[in-house]
Amino acid sequence: MDERVREHAAVLVDWSARVEAGDDVVVSVGPDAHELAVAVAEELGDRGANLLATYSSGEVTRAYIRAHDGDFDESPAHERALVENADVYLSLGGGRNTSATADVPGEQRRAYNDARSELRETRLGTRWVSTVHPTRSLAQQANMAYEAYREFAYDAILRDWESLADEMAQLKDLLDVGSEVRLVSSDTDLTMEIEGRTAVNSAASVAYDSHNLPSGEVFTAPYATEGEVTFDVPMTLRGESVRNVRLEFENGEVVDYDAEQGGAVIGEILETDDGARRLGELGIGMNRGIDRYTDNILFDEKMGDTVHLAVGRAYDACLSEGESGNESAIHVDLITDVSENSRLEIDGEVVQRDGTFRFEDGFDG
Amino acid sequence: MDERVREHAAVLVDWSARVEAGDDVVVSVGPDAHELAVAVAEELGDRGANLLATYSSGEVTRAYIRAHDGDFDESPAHERALVENADVYLSLGGGRNTSATADVPGEQRRAYNDARSELRETRLGTRWVSTVHPTRSLAQQANMAYEAYREFAYDAILRDWESLADEMAQLKDLLDVGSEVRLVSSDTDLTMEIEGRTAVNSAASVAYDSHNLPSGEVFTAPYATEGEVTFDVPMTLRGESVRNVRLEFENGEVVDYDAEQGGAVIGEILETDDGARRLGELGIGMNRGIDRYTDNILFDEKMGDTVHLAVGRAYDACLSEGESGNESAIHVDLITDVSENSRLEIDGEVVQRDGTFRFEDGFDG
Repeated sequence: MDERVREHAAVLVDWSARVEAGDDVVVSVGPDAHELAVAVAEELGDRGANLLATYSSGEVTRAYIRAHDGDFDESPAHERALVENADVYLSLGGGRNTSATADVPGEQRRAYNDARSELRETRLGTRWVSTVHPTRSLAQQANMAYEAYREFAYDAILRDWESLADEMAQLKDLLDVGSEVRLVSSDTDLTMEIEGRTAVNSAASVAYDSHNLPSGEVFTAPYATEGEVTFDVPMTLRGESVRNVRLEFENGEVVDYDAEQGGAVIGEILETDDGARRLGELGIGMNRGIDRYTDNILFDEKMGDTVHLAVGRAYDACLSEGESGNESAIHVDLITDVSENSRLEIDGEVVQRDGTFRFEDGFDG
Repeated sequence: MDERVREHAAVLVDWSARVEAGDDVVVSVGPDAHELAVAVAEELGDRGANLLATYSSGEVTRAYIRAHDGDFDESPAHERALVENADVYLSLGGGRNTSATADVPGEQRRAYNDARSELRETRLGTRWVSTVHPTRSLAQQANMAYEAYREFAYDAILRDWESLADEMAQLKDLLDVGSEVRLVSSDTDLTMEIEGRTAVNSAASVAYDSHNLPSGEVFTAPYATEGEVTFDVPMTLRGESVRNVRLEFENGEVVDYDAEQGGAVIGEILETDDGARRLGELGIGMNRGIDRYTDNILFDEKMGDTVHLAVGRAYDACLSEGESGNESAIHVDLITDVSENSRLEIDGEVVQRDGTFRFEDGFDG
C-alpha cells in the first residue's frame, strides 16, 4: 500500500475525527475508496474503536431512487438507529464515475433528499468528517492524469494542520472583531456585514468545527450584502458547466444575475427558496497545498488565493447560541480568484491584497 | 447488465427474503458484488423497501482485527442498533481473494468472532439470506474459467424453487416420521437417530426456514450416531485442503478420525468443544443445478447425489420448541458422494439408492 494512503487514514482518524478507544465509528466507503477503507480499518483497530462500514455507491442509489415510486420513508428505523448510536461518521468518497446519478430525475432526487433530512441532521450531530480517496474518476473530472492527481490530492490532504490552524487563527481573529467586509477586484465590489458573527478556523478537525479533509479555509456567515461579484473559477453544478457567474445584491438579496455559461442552473438554484437568494457563507481559502482548480468543491474552495461565497444555508457554528442565520434547503458555493488586482478589507483596512495576508511576508497594504 | 444478475436479485428479494413495502433491509455488499447490489437496490426500490448497504470486505476485516489488541467490544451499540432494527438482512458475498484473511492469527479471529456472537444471534432473528455474486475469485477457487463459473452459479441459483420445494417435501415427510437413518457406501456404514426431530425443506426461502441462495437440501438434526463415514468430496477448511476424512462414532461421539490430507485441521475442529465431536446436521443435497464440486460450501453441500454431515451446532428449526440440540461454537460440514454403490435407509427402508430417491423415476429399491 502507498504510504500516503496510511498517512491519510492516520490524519483522518487522529487529527480530523479525534477517534478514541470504544468510539462507535461508521465508515462510509465509496466503491473505489477500498484501499483507504483498509487503511482506516487498521487505524481504528489500533485505537480500539468499533468499526461498521457502510457502502456508498452512486450506482446503487441511482437504481434505488429510479425504481421507487417516490414516496420515500422518512428516516427508516434501521438507518436512524445506526446513526443515532454512532460517535463518529467518516465518509470516504470515491466512485468510478462522478456522473453516476446524472439521470436521476430532479423531482425524485429532491423527494429522496427531503425524506432523508432528519437522518442528515442526526449525522451532523456526530463527529463527522468527509474526505475522498483519489480515484481515476476524480482525476478525470480534474482533467488530470491519475498519478498527477494523486500527487495533487495528497499535497492538499497531508498538510501540517496544526501549523495551518495557527496561521488561520490570525484571520479568524480579524473577522471576529470586524463589522463589515469588502471584497474588491476587477469585476467585483461587494460589502457584507459580519458584526456578531463568529468565524470558523476550518483546520480539518472536529476540534475546530471543521468537517472536511482537506480543509484550510476561514469562513463566517455574512448578511446585508450589497454590490456585485463575479465568480471566475470554473465549476460543475448539478452536472452543468458554470462559468463567470455574476450576482448583484441589494438589501442582502440577489436582484440580478447572469453567467457566461450555466445561467439556467444558477437561476434554478436561486429560485429554490427565499434563503437561496441570500448569502450563507463567506469563505477565504488558505490551503496552499491546493494550487489548481479540479472541479471538486471539497478542494477548490480551500485553495489559497481564492474567496468563495455560498448562497443558501449558513452554518450554525458562525451564529450565536439560538440565533437563526440564513435558512435554506441548499448551500451552493461559488469561487473567485483573488490572486491579482484584488483586495479584501475589514472595516476599511486591507487584510489581504492579491492573495497575500497582512500577517504574511510580502504583504503590501 | 447481464439479465441473470437481475433475475438473481429478483429471486433473492421475492422468493428468498419475501421483502415487502416498508421493510428495513440491510444489504451487506462484498467488494466484487457491486453489480448484484445495484440489481438488488432496484428491486428494493421497486417494492418500496428501505435500503441500507453495508460493506463486507475480508481485507478491511483483516486490517482491523490484526491491528486490534484483541479485547474487542461485545456488540458495539451502533451495529447492534442497526441489526436490531432490521427486518431483512441480505448478504451478497463476493470478494477479490478468497484467502483475504488467511494471515489473521486464529486466536485473534476467535476473539473477534466470540465478541460478535450476540450480533450474530440478533441477525439470525431477521429474515436473513446469504448469497454470492459469481466473482473471479470464486471461479479461481472452483478451478474454473470465469464465464463457465457464471454459467455454473446461475444454474444453481435460478431454479424453479417452488417445484423443487414440492419435490423436497417428499423427503422431508419421510424423515419426519422416521426414527433411524442409515447411510451405507463403500467406506461408510453409519446409523443416526432422528426420532422427534423435524427436517427442514431448505428451498432457499425464509418461508421454509431456509437462508441460503442457492439452497436445495433437506436437513435434520441427528443424534446417537454409530459407525464409520468417509467424506470423499474435496474441500478447503480454514485455508487447508482436506481430503477423504474418515470419522468413527461410538455413542454419538467421534472416537477416532483420520484423513488423507488435512488431518490436523480436522483434529483442531474436533477439539473445539464437546459438541464439536457430535453431529449437528444430516443434510441431503437435492439441487441438480449443481453438478460439480467448486470448493464452496454454499454450493457443494446442496449438490444432487451428495449427503453431508456437520459436526457441531444443530439448527433450532430441527428441534422441538425449547429443546436444546447439540451445542457448539462451530458447525463444520463434510460431504460424501452417494452417486454410486450407496444407499440411504430410513427405518430399514431404502429411500435413496445411488443418488436416486424412491419417489423418482428410475429408483431401484
